Amino acid sequence: MNKKWQTSIIIVLTTTALTFSCEQKQEGESSEKKEVKAELSAEDLDLLKQAKKFFKPLPEIAEPTDYKMNDDMVSLGKKLYFDTRLSKSNTISCNSCHNLASYGVDNNPTSIGHKWVAGPRNSPTVLNAAIHSFQFWDGRAADVEEQAEGPILNPIEMGAPHEEFVIDRLRTIETYGDLFAAAFPEEETPLTYKNMARAIGAFERTLMTPDRFDDFLKGDGSALTTAEKKGLKTFMDVGCTTCHSGPALGGQIFQKFGLIKGPYWDYTGSETIDEGKYEVTGIESDKYMFKVPGLRNIAKTAPYFHDGSIWDLDKSVEIMGVTQLGKELSPEQIQEIVDFLEALTGDLPDEARTLPILPRMGRETTKPDFS
Amino acid sequence: MNKKWQTSIIIVLTTTALTFSCEQKQEGESSEKKEVKAELSAEDLDLLKQAKKFFKPLPEIAEPTDYKMNDDMVSLGKKLYFDTRLSKSNTISCNSCHNLASYGVDNNPTSIGHKWVAGPRNSPTVLNAAIHSFQFWDGRAADVEEQAEGPILNPIEMGAPHEEFVIDRLRTIETYGDLFAAAFPEEETPLTYKNMARAIGAFERTLMTPDRFDDFLKGDGSALTTAEKKGLKTFMDVGCTTCHSGPALGGQIFQKFGLIKGPYWDYTGSETIDEGKYEVTGIESDKYMFKVPGLRNIAKTAPYFHDGSIWDLDKSVEIMGVTQLGKELSPEQIQEIVDFLEALTGDLPDEARTLPILPRMGRETTKPDFS
Repeated sequence: MNKKWQTSIIIVLTTTALTFSCEQKQEGESSEKKEVKAELSAEDLDLLKQAKKFFKPLPEIAEPTDYKMNDDMVSLGKKLYFDTRLSKSNTISCNSCHNLASYGVDNNPTSIGHKWVAGPRNSPTVLNAAIHSFQFWDGRAADVEEQAEGPILNPIEMGAPHEEFVIDRLRTIETYGDLFAAAFPEEETPLTYKNMARAIGAFERTLMTPDRFDDFLKGDGSALTTAEKKGLKTFMDVGCTTCHSGPALGGQIFQKFGLIKGPYWDYTGSETIDEGKYEVTGIESDKYMFKVPGLRNIAKTAPYFHDGSIWDLDKSVEIMGVTQLGKELSPEQIQEIVDFLEALTGDLPDEARTLPILPRMGRETTKPDFS
Repeated sequence: MNKKWQTSIIIVLTTTALTFSCEQKQEGESSEKKEVKAELSAEDLDLLKQAKKFFKPLPEIAEPTDYKMNDDMVSLGKKLYFDTRLSKSNTISCNSCHNLASYGVDNNPTSIGHKWVAGPRNSPTVLNAAIHSFQFWDGRAADVEEQAEGPILNPIEMGAPHEEFVIDRLRTIETYGDLFAAAFPEEETPLTYKNMARAIGAFERTLMTPDRFDDFLKGDGSALTTAEKKGLKTFMDVGCTTCHSGPALGGQIFQKFGLIKGPYWDYTGSETIDEGKYEVTGIESDKYMFKVPGLRNIAKTAPYFHDGSIWDLDKSVEIMGVTQLGKELSPEQIQEIVDFLEALTGDLPDEARTLPILPRMGRETTKPDFS
């Protein structure tokens, strides 16, 4: 399997902007890549010029503005991200609903949580989420660090009764104390709920998945197929970019689901009516306002929309055309847009996909509680 | 993070007998290792001679006897092992209960399955399980391939209603058809329930975790500390080796829990009485007979026994002394044995710990069903 492993590393490395082990291999690969980089045709140049008005390549890492990330923080964050002991039942981790083996989602309309209760909204992908302007479908968290504080204490998600319960688990599980001290060297009390969320956030900031569209934005005309370029043009011309722009193709603003034609559930067939941001703010104008999702890896993260009500990408594009743009997109236009969206599938850094080795529970660690 | 990653790879590689990427690094490391290998003292030589009567080093891979493994089978098996879509709810995978991030267990007395029902017995570690003579606590499966057929269809585990449901999921999920064809090139119908289980089994056959005890068995006197060597001697002298022998230090025979002193629940405080193998065979002499668990990584796989009734390793050793050997082991003897058991912690091949990239569901793939 040795050979396969090396091959898979090379594949990952050539399709990611980050560098890991076997660096020389990667440099080798990327320089090869440069060599085959095609000259831009006049048509490609126009398309690229238009695209650059709306889009930007993904960053290598979504650097935080309010603290300094370090490697110890990221590696601690990865452990915490995969540690089911943050849940009351020792059964649910961040990765349960935001599965890094399936593009950061669980492919369920809404996720199953503590005591087998399904949540009210679809679990969005964690991939590239760190560059979004805010988190959750209703934007109630400012960043991934603040988001990470929520699900652990949510009675129908990870079900931890209170912060002290979680801290007590982490304090009594072997080595976490030292790992927090290493990750937060300046702090007198490194092991806090906030720092736990910060470490998870720091790890999530490394979950960027650059794809062929980034290569195109960087001037590689051969990165996208003719069909994908046509789709990109259609995507921009019909107006999807009004909301889906920036490096994540979304994640920057709120928009009313059913902006032009509504109510949205007439088109999605949603079983429940979700009033979106209004449920947090109580402001009338926030009714049915949801965060515009990013479209990176969108072809892999079905089902779609805040309630996972639609499974097929083409159907989702059709609905967006009608409800958000007031346009009956033709089957051809829909297919073109889907072709483009398919090109937004990227690769997770291999390092992020390698499971941590979790420290064992201590004698005093509270036992799992399924109730 | 580049440096850390390389370091972590080196650590893994130097502590495993298998070879992966950056092979030269590993060879470099292992040759260094040989150089520092200590000469065996007369005492070590006696201990090693005695140990070799009972134990063998772990194999690199647990080769199957009834079929030929190949790399495509293993890589398919890894995908299947992590794929929650083998469960009715799209929520539970093999890895949910046999978590490769925590030494192949979920650290629960018994695992939570479909509809939040807890199983009757503790989920044993999948690590090194492939070399056991049979599978499950009651030995009802001959090997890991046969074992893998069970939980997927168990209504309180992964909850799939029948084999056809699972095959239909796999047939409609993108690329699985091709992956089965590549893994089973000689077969006319590669995508079968049996082949699914065989691929999972093939992957599990790679989950060997050689540790310092293997190095000692191979003649490296410096591989174990003085305390660990003392513990090994005590382990053999008090008679643990009557059952816990072979490369897995167990997994080869059945034994009555409460052989000398019983019933076992008087010592474990078990809440329910489990009649073990008798529940399968109905033979009186099988009452309370359970598979002797392997002891590799035992220090990391609490809680212990068939029902996970005991959380502390020293307490488990004490109970074994009384119920199986009829001996009141002294606190010193118990500590010595625990010191030895701590040395049985090994490393999983890094390749096995790298999450697969799961193929997406097709239009026809049956949707998750939480009911």
